[in-house]
Amino acid sequence: MTNRYKITFAYDGTKFAGFQKQPQQRTIEGVLTRVVNKMAKRADGEISVYGSGRTDAGVHALAQVAHFDFPFDIPADSMLKGLNSMCPLDIEVKDVEIVSNDFHARYDVTGKKYLYRISQGRFTDPFKRNYTAHWRLPIDFSLIDTAIQDFVGKHDFSSFVASGAKPGSRIRTIFAVNAIDDEVNDEIQLEFYGDGFMYNQIRIMVAVLVEIGMGKRPVHDIQRLLKVKDRQQARLTMPANGLYLKKVYYPGDDPKHSMKKHQQRD
Amino acid sequence: MTNRYKITFAYDGTKFAGFQKQPQQRTIEGVLTRVVNKMAKRADGEISVYGSGRTDAGVHALAQVAHFDFPFDIPADSMLKGLNSMCPLDIEVKDVEIVSNDFHARYDVTGKKYLYRISQGRFTDPFKRNYTAHWRLPIDFSLIDTAIQDFVGKHDFSSFVASGAKPGSRIRTIFAVNAIDDEVNDEIQLEFYGDGFMYNQIRIMVAVLVEIGMGKRPVHDIQRLLKVKDRQQARLTMPANGLYLKKVYYPGDDPKHSMKKHQQRD
Repeated sequence: MTNRYKITFAYDGTKFAGFQKQPQQRTIEGVLTRVVNKMAKRADGEISVYGSGRTDAGVHALAQVAHFDFPFDIPADSMLKGLNSMCPLDIEVKDVEIVSNDFHARYDVTGKKYLYRISQGRFTDPFKRNYTAHWRLPIDFSLIDTAIQDFVGKHDFSSFVASGAKPGSRIRTIFAVNAIDDEVNDEIQLEFYGDGFMYNQIRIMVAVLVEIGMGKRPVHDIQRLLKVKDRQQARLTMPANGLYLKKVYYPGDDPKHSMKKHQQRD
Repeated sequence: MTNRYKITFAYDGTKFAGFQKQPQQRTIEGVLTRVVNKMAKRADGEISVYGSGRTDAGVHALAQVAHFDFPFDIPADSMLKGLNSMCPLDIEVKDVEIVSNDFHARYDVTGKKYLYRISQGRFTDPFKRNYTAHWRLPIDFSLIDTAIQDFVGKHDFSSFVASGAKPGSRIRTIFAVNAIDDEVNDEIQLEFYGDGFMYNQIRIMVAVLVEIGMGKRPVHDIQRLLKVKDRQQARLTMPANGLYLKKVYYPGDDPKHSMKKHQQRD
């Protein structure tokens, strides 16, 4: 008899070679798998840890989700303490739930929310260098705030997918977006909430928004890019260090409660 | 003919073995000296960089100050750009001034302000692990807010000096203190503004405040500790990663403009 545990965790992606387990590399999945097997006194890898999806090297998470089957009956709170006592300080488990054995962290995902942070200012702030993308040229926030709305809806995102993405449909739905002009921290924050995002999609979408904010593209160029379905025309990809996986949604999490402001505009 | 440059700079202390130049170690002074000599096309160390004082390994700075003499007449703003283009991303030069040749970054200091950040919460936040001290046990902020006032004034701080400090008078003046209960970030922030601080002094003072906040010492135990002049009785030292050098004062910077709230209580 095993229990299935759903864990929600944050990580600072700076020192990880991404999420997915790889030989000789420090990855989130690799570290968690080692910790879970050690707690269960199993050989490393005997118990698998299934994440909701990958994040790239340098990408952070405020609330990533994974599941695993554990051979002993440990209360959720003891599992939380145990995991945190064994995880390195750049991973923090925030929540543990015992779930039914048919829950799957990846297959059951109904939505994901990502945050992208861009810091402005003449020079790179040493305390933000790993936690925001730095863009020293002036960005007109109001242009971005208008343009980002063009992403909302069901679209073919072929113009916004990196060439390395796996084949398949490029049609995705973005439920809501949000742009915040954080003047206190001289920072622009962009949120995207959708049913799923492809390889580098958000980093390419943000790069287009930045070009619009600098006046290098017309404010509604996203409408055109969605039509032409041509990655070459979107050009740039923003760096990984500004990107955060903010939330993973499963059936029962009500999406309507989040990002109300922009949902009402739909 | 040389110009003397006063530079104000921030650094993330995480990856430095402290401020002071040391063979085979990455230090702030070492990096800046290499950069300045490279810009002047001199052998490393020919031009010296004089800081306002040292900070320990892991201690951060929001506005440290140093000076050096440069053999070419470069405008302050070009020096600022040049330094930032050559400094690593964990040092950011914020301001450059050409000053008179009798300015000295260390001898002319009239005051320093330090900030100490303590994060609360059950587990270490991965994004704060290098930038705050984490204290998971509950702290009663009101006790700290009361107790910290006992440091204000001219005192013999013998109870609050690490054994490795250089000999000399232990009498220092603290002009003002400030305690902030940042509930949004689940963090306590403590500021100390005085004419100078000795080795580990702030980290020892904060450790006593934390013990008071946990109810382990009477609220006015600092008055007693100042009298007994016994380092053994202060016991603990808080970790370096929560400490920030916030400002260095020189003649002409008016101390009365800062931390008004608590100065008025004196």
